Amino acid sequence: MKALITLATALLMTLPTMAADTSHRIEPPNWWVGMRDTSLQLMLHAPGIADATPALAAYPGVTLKASHRATSPNYLFIDLDIAPGTQPGELQLSVAGETLRYPLLARAPGSAERQGFGPKDAIYLVVPDRFAQGGSGRQADMKEGSDRADPGGRHGGDLAGLRQHLDYIAGLGFTQVWPTPLVENNSARYSYHGYAATDFYRIDPRFGSNDDFGAFVNEARAKGLGVIQDVVLNHIGIGHWWMADLPAPDWINQWPQYTETHHARMTLQDPYASANDRKQFTDGWFVHGMPDLNQRRPELATYLTQMTLWWIETYGLSGLRTDTYSYSDREFLTRWSARVMQEYPHLNIVGEEWSPHPAVVSYWQRGKRNHDGYVSYTPSMMDFPLQSNLLAALTEADGAHTGLTRLYEGLAHDFVYPDPANLVLFDGNHDTPRIFSLLKNDVGLTKIALAYLATTRRIPQLFYGSELLMQSPTERDDGRVRADMPGGWAGDQANAFTGAGLSDEQRDMQDWTRRLFTWRKTAGVIHDGALMQFAPLEGVYVFFRYDAKRTVMVVMNKNAAPAELALKRFNERISAGQRARDVLGGQTLTLGDRITVPARSPLILEIER
Amino acid sequence: MKALITLATALLMTLPTMAADTSHRIEPPNWWVGMRDTSLQLMLHAPGIADATPALAAYPGVTLKASHRATSPNYLFIDLDIAPGTQPGELQLSVAGETLRYPLLARAPGSAERQGFGPKDAIYLVVPDRFAQGGSGRQADMKEGSDRADPGGRHGGDLAGLRQHLDYIAGLGFTQVWPTPLVENNSARYSYHGYAATDFYRIDPRFGSNDDFGAFVNEARAKGLGVIQDVVLNHIGIGHWWMADLPAPDWINQWPQYTETHHARMTLQDPYASANDRKQFTDGWFVHGMPDLNQRRPELATYLTQMTLWWIETYGLSGLRTDTYSYSDREFLTRWSARVMQEYPHLNIVGEEWSPHPAVVSYWQRGKRNHDGYVSYTPSMMDFPLQSNLLAALTEADGAHTGLTRLYEGLAHDFVYPDPANLVLFDGNHDTPRIFSLLKNDVGLTKIALAYLATTRRIPQLFYGSELLMQSPTERDDGRVRADMPGGWAGDQANAFTGAGLSDEQRDMQDWTRRLFTWRKTAGVIHDGALMQFAPLEGVYVFFRYDAKRTVMVVMNKNAAPAELALKRFNERISAGQRARDVLGGQTLTLGDRITVPARSPLILEIER
Repeated sequence: MKALITLATALLMTLPTMAADTSHRIEPPNWWVGMRDTSLQLMLHAPGIADATPALAAYPGVTLKASHRATSPNYLFIDLDIAPGTQPGELQLSVAGETLRYPLLARAPGSAERQGFGPKDAIYLVVPDRFAQGGSGRQADMKEGSDRADPGGRHGGDLAGLRQHLDYIAGLGFTQVWPTPLVENNSARYSYHGYAATDFYRIDPRFGSNDDFGAFVNEARAKGLGVIQDVVLNHIGIGHWWMADLPAPDWINQWPQYTETHHARMTLQDPYASANDRKQFTDGWFVHGMPDLNQRRPELATYLTQMTLWWIETYGLSGLRTDTYSYSDREFLTRWSARVMQEYPHLNIVGEEWSPHPAVVSYWQRGKRNHDGYVSYTPSMMDFPLQSNLLAALTEADGAHTGLTRLYEGLAHDFVYPDPANLVLFDGNHDTPRIFSLLKNDVGLTKIALAYLATTRRIPQLFYGSELLMQSPTERDDGRVRADMPGGWAGDQANAFTGAGLSDEQRDMQDWTRRLFTWRKTAGVIHDGALMQFAPLEGVYVFFRYDAKRTVMVVMNKNAAPAELALKRFNERISAGQRARDVLGGQTLTLGDRITVPARSPLILEIER
Repeated sequence: MKALITLATALLMTLPTMAADTSHRIEPPNWWVGMRDTSLQLMLHAPGIADATPALAAYPGVTLKASHRATSPNYLFIDLDIAPGTQPGELQLSVAGETLRYPLLARAPGSAERQGFGPKDAIYLVVPDRFAQGGSGRQADMKEGSDRADPGGRHGGDLAGLRQHLDYIAGLGFTQVWPTPLVENNSARYSYHGYAATDFYRIDPRFGSNDDFGAFVNEARAKGLGVIQDVVLNHIGIGHWWMADLPAPDWINQWPQYTETHHARMTLQDPYASANDRKQFTDGWFVHGMPDLNQRRPELATYLTQMTLWWIETYGLSGLRTDTYSYSDREFLTRWSARVMQEYPHLNIVGEEWSPHPAVVSYWQRGKRNHDGYVSYTPSMMDFPLQSNLLAALTEADGAHTGLTRLYEGLAHDFVYPDPANLVLFDGNHDTPRIFSLLKNDVGLTKIALAYLATTRRIPQLFYGSELLMQSPTERDDGRVRADMPGGWAGDQANAFTGAGLSDEQRDMQDWTRRLFTWRKTAGVIHDGALMQFAPLEGVYVFFRYDAKRTVMVVMNKNAAPAELALKRFNERISAGQRARDVLGGQTLTLGDRITVPARSPLILEIER
């Protein structure tokens, strides 16, 4: 009975800290009563367990439906049904002469009805290893240590550091935090980014414990910040514990010789695609160190889905960001997104599909009527097309289809999306060069970009440090893009959180960003108002957010000189004589024939009725 | 009765030669029995005719339904109905004390069922003023004379010149000719291009007479060449006879002050468009010299529709190319295209919508289910998106979404179109720089582009002179892009038609083009076969056209070095041991593990079964 006591104690005390003990695993480590889907499949991993015949001690409402093995002798899959009305408690499963105690918890009140992030929100993206070191991290049994001098090494940021600066993030006006993945990535090197999981149920100890994660989420929520979990369904790290003992050879996509994805994502929509090409896209590995999961394997599909739900339910998350979205098996994505949204109908999930084409990104959004009948339940997608248009708008010369016209025509493509307001538009992320650098260190253009994020018909997402004008090479350079947040480490010369050591330009940008997103928080017309845009003219682009009661006018002047903007063209939305308040400057003015927009600046006017 | 005799004689002898006599016009100058739509509206133009009450002498099957005036005292509109079964003959209309005799002709056998151009065809685009001078042109009463030294002047090409070189065009393997507009453009200068009509029913005398046009079409048809009429519905020339006496002030779109279109065509699809912006796009003038027609005016809509049908029926055309498509009133375009296709269900119409976005171009194609419910009956559109991708594919470095990937992803977008095979893909046209110049005078790349045109799932269109590697500035320069075809004028040093004076490179390209399109004519799998494409790899792009019986493999190697192409990846379409014929080189080979593709070259292989 030693195994029983060890395992059950571990489960009940600090749920998923069993990672070190790979000889006895049961995943998910607990479940809940009252889920809408009553099924639950447990994965047991223990030496020689595969052919065991499990038995369930009588428990009202719970049925052991079946069990089966895969190829490895060390995995057993047990299918349970937990009927509606089942009470929380502890299941007793007899397996191979031992009795496992398995917790069935009660769900938190309102859990299913939680409201996910949406157009009222603004998201702050952080790379936890690079944000702040607060003392929760432990080296524990992890292979790679810290080396702040190595751009590709671990710098030691952790959950306590993130938690200590929640006031900073909330104070900037953000209402959601998206940390890049926090689960265990126990690789020998280049492990800090988190996209190569070695244990799906364990927070990497160098960030802290699972309890530290729970405390972080709770405190964030208390400060008005939802937490978005970054989920990777497509691949694992080569050091994942599965790799030493695959449940079945087809648990991962294996090839006669190492084969990488060619990233030709349009194989999935292309009416002319070859089957070979589709297979290489979906089943090819992302990189050598990331084995590609085969979600067509039913137990793996179930595992990934239950794992997703487990994090949402255990920690009270407000949504998911799904990495390398289209690289996973597409039918699996349908079922996965359906199940998540079935359990949490108001949650949000934003998928990463790195394509400049609205026809491609929209393919994955819930509600799209696709040419091939494909159905998705993922409510949001990252708006890579509009992000690339935004950058081009501010760097290219204006032409028939270039410069500002890209932004105008990009937004006009919204008819392609079933729910454009629910897309996430971002200034940049951990994979892209810093926006300030892409805009050639032009503060005015950077403010225009951020003003656009904050006012257009999207959910805005800012990459940490953009408010400080952080820089990077303009070609991809992950280590430098994900530079340390100043002030996150004891002894840092500059400090984003106190303002000490920042340049005047940085302080101005930080303050400006704070005013912008703080204003956005209560500017309801930005959250749910209509939009009207006007074709760009002479380097100036104008749009409105409005409803029956409220009007906001946004002007983007990318010229190096002030623009005299004649207002008559906008008489569908404004009239001479109306009062207008400059949201970021604070002045009020009375609209006449024309207004002056400063050089290289955005102007956001709240129009009085 | 003098007017009667003058008018009727003119009508019966040489139909539309009344242009000089603007005091008595009746348009269309004749009509037919047996049209599917039985209505006909005559426009009469004569001093003070507006309030006349016309009477129709009894004619079995024909009813005078109504008549009305517009604003001008000099226009009368008469609505007739020509019932099914009505016999050809001559109507007698009494108007203002005079009797007009109006011909009702029999239709040519099979007229309604004619087959328009389609995927089996290849189109040769010519600018008649710049192609060849054959002697049919007359200065007549036209304002602008010839000046071959002026790039923007008239160079004197004419219908006889075009007719004399039909063998050349057919000999190159083309099956359709699209001349830019031939109707009267009687402006003082810059009149050669034809897009500023001053009389919709008269061939410009500098090209020849209407009879010359008829003879040209007939001879073309005899040589296997259909003729595509270039129709301008959006605007007229400032010298159009209407402008001296507008039927009504709203016959054209008038503005308090001169207002040009801003070309922001996406105002029509944009869910966020302002009404002001939409109006400026549609109702703004194209340029000063081109008054913008208001097709919301019912008599004008009818006029333009009947005019279109008149040319098709009179001259036996195989299709239309519609200029500045989206600039016309969009509801009019629905009715116009519906009516044309009602009368000629197998005709083809290709619209010009100069946008790089498939979502925009596809909006106008027949069968598209649009987000806003808009319905079109125009079967084909010019494929500007794929054309721009083709150029980028051959000039940009390959990247995730650049270079050859543009072509691959561009074609993958075909799911956006209801009928992609019926789009017209072109190497360039009279408005774009010459392809050879855009491809930096690289013959290999130019051959790749033409091979792509000829083999992909489109109707190919070549701009005259591309087969001679004609050059131009790489920024828009109409006069030079539309340079004279060498040999079209007596005394030309070089002669495309005889080959005299051409460089070796030109002769090679001309011969190569001839082999390419001559082969295409009988390569049925290109006309109606399926397509399978493979993601570009290392500067090589491969696709197949195939059906159960036939397979063509197309390889495009844009590298400066020969490519060793491993064939295993293509095992869905080919197998080792199959014989293959190099369509353009003539050699045959047996497929093994790999093939060598010469540097900067296309390779087209017909695979034996």
